[in-house]
Amino acid sequence: MKAIVFDGRNSHFATDLPKPLPEPGESLIQVELAAICNTDREILKGYRPDYRGVLGHEFVGIVRESPDPSLLNRRVVGEINLTCGLCLYCSSGRPHHCIERRALGINDKNGAFAGYLTLPTSLLHPVDEALPAEKAVFCEPLAAALRITEQVEFAPGTPVALLGDGRLALMICQSLAATQDVDLTVFGRHPEKLALFSPYAKTFGAIDTEDTFEVVVDATGNPASLSDAIALTRSEGTLVLKSTYAEKAHIDISMVVVREIRMIGSRCGPFKPALELLQTGKVDLPPLTCFAPEDFKKAMESKTFKAALDFRS
Amino acid sequence: MKAIVFDGRNSHFATDLPKPLPEPGESLIQVELAAICNTDREILKGYRPDYRGVLGHEFVGIVRESPDPSLLNRRVVGEINLTCGLCLYCSSGRPHHCIERRALGINDKNGAFAGYLTLPTSLLHPVDEALPAEKAVFCEPLAAALRITEQVEFAPGTPVALLGDGRLALMICQSLAATQDVDLTVFGRHPEKLALFSPYAKTFGAIDTEDTFEVVVDATGNPASLSDAIALTRSEGTLVLKSTYAEKAHIDISMVVVREIRMIGSRCGPFKPALELLQTGKVDLPPLTCFAPEDFKKAMESKTFKAALDFRS
Repeated sequence: MKAIVFDGRNSHFATDLPKPLPEPGESLIQVELAAICNTDREILKGYRPDYRGVLGHEFVGIVRESPDPSLLNRRVVGEINLTCGLCLYCSSGRPHHCIERRALGINDKNGAFAGYLTLPTSLLHPVDEALPAEKAVFCEPLAAALRITEQVEFAPGTPVALLGDGRLALMICQSLAATQDVDLTVFGRHPEKLALFSPYAKTFGAIDTEDTFEVVVDATGNPASLSDAIALTRSEGTLVLKSTYAEKAHIDISMVVVREIRMIGSRCGPFKPALELLQTGKVDLPPLTCFAPEDFKKAMESKTFKAALDFRS
Repeated sequence: MKAIVFDGRNSHFATDLPKPLPEPGESLIQVELAAICNTDREILKGYRPDYRGVLGHEFVGIVRESPDPSLLNRRVVGEINLTCGLCLYCSSGRPHHCIERRALGINDKNGAFAGYLTLPTSLLHPVDEALPAEKAVFCEPLAAALRITEQVEFAPGTPVALLGDGRLALMICQSLAATQDVDLTVFGRHPEKLALFSPYAKTFGAIDTEDTFEVVVDATGNPASLSDAIALTRSEGTLVLKSTYAEKAHIDISMVVVREIRMIGSRCGPFKPALELLQTGKVDLPPLTCFAPEDFKKAMESKTFKAALDFRS
């Protein structure tokens, strides 16, 4: 099968990789589309030096083998964290922090940039027939955006600031607008991107720190934005951190202490409500740009809203 | 009256300061003891360059004039934040973050290193006759320690790590031991200080980050300890930040995001339960070391558990 393989330093396009064999409890999924995430770019920059194998973790595909016959030939999306079920975190309701965690295309588990992948059947979520693959593939990042709604309670009318105008920021913006009664303001640097946010939020190019917000979400992907994010957060307010980056951030901790700010790291989220938002059309994301798998490098450099590899042909 | 006055750069001992005049609603308090806090030391190092006036905010004294006759000649302790009652924070249950906040001996309000001070009467808390001034003066820092119990819910048996073996750490240790059913471990660098913690907690000189804790409290006063504090915090666990310092801290934000850690700044706390702990003997702090006000410089350099200026004679 075709696949994009990472050797610890570089990635290459392969055509001769054997189809993976499902482990007990796993299903075999024929990949339709696999979308590119910033994490994939970070892996190529050295974020996961120990990883070897097929890249990719945002996918939609068709189940071809499964211990659950009801899933056969169904379109599915899949959660990416493989857990042990036994450790401290698995046994205390935090399975996505499993100590033995493997992650699709990121850590010790071949990923989705391939003709086929295998995943534990319990991680699969069937997709309504009516939802095309081009929409369903947004489920994983949209779930990550929705994670915020599991971590923060939003009182009606809560003033919320969102920093960043990229893909993740747009999903956060739309998922908050669709699920919470909040008063949303978005700060971004790119007028053409900010236009996508304006149906859902007030938008600004520059940050005026005279304004403060009960909840601030930093989705800029830039550690330099943290000072602004802290300044925008009200005392005893909440700052949600959605960005990962290799560099360390320099933080004025005294400001956090004196103003009693809560900073919360936020990562993977719930698939069911994300799929629901996609299936009911309550989020409306810009179209995917599809590339042939052999054009992986071009796809990685694409500046479109979301690039994906198309394994259907 | 005698007083220690800060001119924006240096402090000096004065003997000729006029007794302050209470504003409407304020009481006049004759200071018995005023204890020295690290914040006082930080002000002398430049932490509050705009402040001019009498230093000091931890005190116990006797009410000499008051609109509330029941307080006359009563021993009191006092909260240190003067609030406007009208702003965003005052009107949303966060008065100690008042936008117009003044703070005794710290911001636009003459402090407690003086024969007399004035404070709004509503900030005063009468002390039981049986509690000596030498114990009552610990109320303000003990309240700051107790703030943690307002911000974090501790399930029974929660594993908690406390970093630091200084004054604030000991008050946090004792207040947690007295009010919560937690499994407390203290990490500190000074064996002689750690001995004070051992009746209440397991104590260790070195940090072994194989262990992790649901709640970690950083009271080291040292930004370099933050990496250890983050490593010790379990995924989805809580890191309470109690230390303020002038330097910026360098933080691995990706670790906070991927492990979904909650970091909470924590500052001033509730006087009533603090006073209760002192009056019932549920906390048992080492003795105060008293200095004459004219020996302020010596008191500031004192390495004892707690130094205080004695204005009684």
